[in-house]
Amino acid sequence: MKRQIINDSGAAVTEALEGMELSFPDLVSYDTDRGLIRRATPARDKVGLVSGGGSGHEPLHAGFVGRGMLDVAVPGAVFASPTALQVHEGTLAADSGRGVVQIVKNYTGDVLNFTIAGELAGDHAVDTEMVLVDDDLATDTDTDGDADGPGRRGTAAVVAVEKIAGARAELGGSLTEVADAARRVARTSRTMSLALQAGTHPGEDRPAFDLAADEVELGVGIHGERGISRARYASADELSEMLVTPLVRDLGLGRGSAVLAIVNGLGGAYPLELSIAARAVHRLLGAQGITVARTLVGTYVTSLDMHGFSVTLTPVDADLLKLWDAPVRTPALNW
Amino acid sequence: MKRQIINDSGAAVTEALEGMELSFPDLVSYDTDRGLIRRATPARDKVGLVSGGGSGHEPLHAGFVGRGMLDVAVPGAVFASPTALQVHEGTLAADSGRGVVQIVKNYTGDVLNFTIAGELAGDHAVDTEMVLVDDDLATDTDTDGDADGPGRRGTAAVVAVEKIAGARAELGGSLTEVADAARRVARTSRTMSLALQAGTHPGEDRPAFDLAADEVELGVGIHGERGISRARYASADELSEMLVTPLVRDLGLGRGSAVLAIVNGLGGAYPLELSIAARAVHRLLGAQGITVARTLVGTYVTSLDMHGFSVTLTPVDADLLKLWDAPVRTPALNW
Repeated sequence: MKRQIINDSGAAVTEALEGMELSFPDLVSYDTDRGLIRRATPARDKVGLVSGGGSGHEPLHAGFVGRGMLDVAVPGAVFASPTALQVHEGTLAADSGRGVVQIVKNYTGDVLNFTIAGELAGDHAVDTEMVLVDDDLATDTDTDGDADGPGRRGTAAVVAVEKIAGARAELGGSLTEVADAARRVARTSRTMSLALQAGTHPGEDRPAFDLAADEVELGVGIHGERGISRARYASADELSEMLVTPLVRDLGLGRGSAVLAIVNGLGGAYPLELSIAARAVHRLLGAQGITVARTLVGTYVTSLDMHGFSVTLTPVDADLLKLWDAPVRTPALNW
Repeated sequence: MKRQIINDSGAAVTEALEGMELSFPDLVSYDTDRGLIRRATPARDKVGLVSGGGSGHEPLHAGFVGRGMLDVAVPGAVFASPTALQVHEGTLAADSGRGVVQIVKNYTGDVLNFTIAGELAGDHAVDTEMVLVDDDLATDTDTDGDADGPGRRGTAAVVAVEKIAGARAELGGSLTEVADAARRVARTSRTMSLALQAGTHPGEDRPAFDLAADEVELGVGIHGERGISRARYASADELSEMLVTPLVRDLGLGRGSAVLAIVNGLGGAYPLELSIAARAVHRLLGAQGITVARTLVGTYVTSLDMHGFSVTLTPVDADLLKLWDAPVRTPALNW
């Protein structure tokens, strides 16, 4: 039986947001009425950045609100989209007169509600640009020609998109420039994930699905969606290879390529495991002459307490690295 | 059955350190021959800081090597002290001519080996000061008069000690001044921990000990040492109160006190849980008129993948806060 450190399953999300505000009052402020987390000191005269989506992926997105990253995050309930009204309020709150870039992971409800909010913002004379993040290679439908499907899901690449767009906005970029920088990262990033154990919803005592002792779920989604296949439980090196190989192939990486790598814990993976996985990712890419220019290793985009990890690769050049290296100060990402 | 993302249980520690070096090559360098992690660019003309101890507590200590914190970390095997020779090499490597402060968690093997290394350093004309961290209130023996016992164990307060001492050293403090700052934090910090599930050693498929479905282990150690008592599994608020109440009493905190609070995941706790626990800690302290001046929330001092958390409280004044707020750049702590 899986037990959790919670009070009330229905209140877990709001209590966690309250905890974040209490812990980092100089960074973020939780507006409970409007259901949004915003910078404690709103930015002035810059393009605004709003993101959001279902909760259960902590520290995403509220943990990335602050200087150099988001202005506002709009969290829904666990694995449920924020409402259109909530996104609308968040979009207006992110505006300081130069328009707002909405960063949206590709899920039907999120896309719908951010789209409505973008249209409503226009009524308030706030210009918006929506950037779709759809990095999950496991859900790529190009191969079977299903062009009308929902497309790839948005997962951990959203951290890179928010960081790069945040830096571009902080440096004075226009609405178009910030949206372009975000879209470039979104378009070129791909992620693969695997789980050794599914996540357990707050208040439940069993993981969302069972895996046999010799199986891992490959291509698992951050809402606990089943993956594309089962693979055999194997060494960290072999598991990492299952993730890295399709990414390298899809992105057409090879000798001379340079990438940003995000080795992301899905909630229940502990630091020793993530460092071992990061080693494997470096060695696999290094053996193919691919330079890992920067690495982020940690627990950033989760699926509750799912035990597993994801690897995200983003091709980078000097311009992107400069934006990646720009200062950031949020509850969950700092340098 | 608990499975892990590892290759070989015997190599897990060194592979994780390799992963850290590969991921953060601008921050840390892993000297495999001497078994130590040091800054990629050694500091010059400042008091050196070395810490270390058994592994299995990642990101501690290697994750705290970098500007504003440690110069060198000497990791042992999982839950095993580094050798005296290793600590000796680490102490010399941390010296840039102004002496070295050794930060040591209070465990017999660690104390012994750092003491030997300190004596050996003298032979090399390197002055050392050893600072003992013994914050674990669960092992306080004052109450039963066992003055000859091993004393309190060292746990998560070591992060505060390393941060404060690191800042003091970076600001040009003398060997005595840096050691004094570290000792002040060590002397006044207390920690309480609890586990919902014990950690699982790499390569094992069962946690180190079992807990009944309605029990938590209160006062558990970071090496999986059994706690001082079993308590009933309860809400996050009630669990947090079991930790905070004895801390407040022991430290004599009350209206007008100001503290630094570290809400630390022991490995398997996921971000949503830690934010909910942080909320509880703030509310419990706030209700008693105690100001939480700064909060650190995250997974910093672990017991492998133990599911649980600890709370550390350190009384602070303006001088300590200035040192806490000073810049830090390491794999695991940044601002």
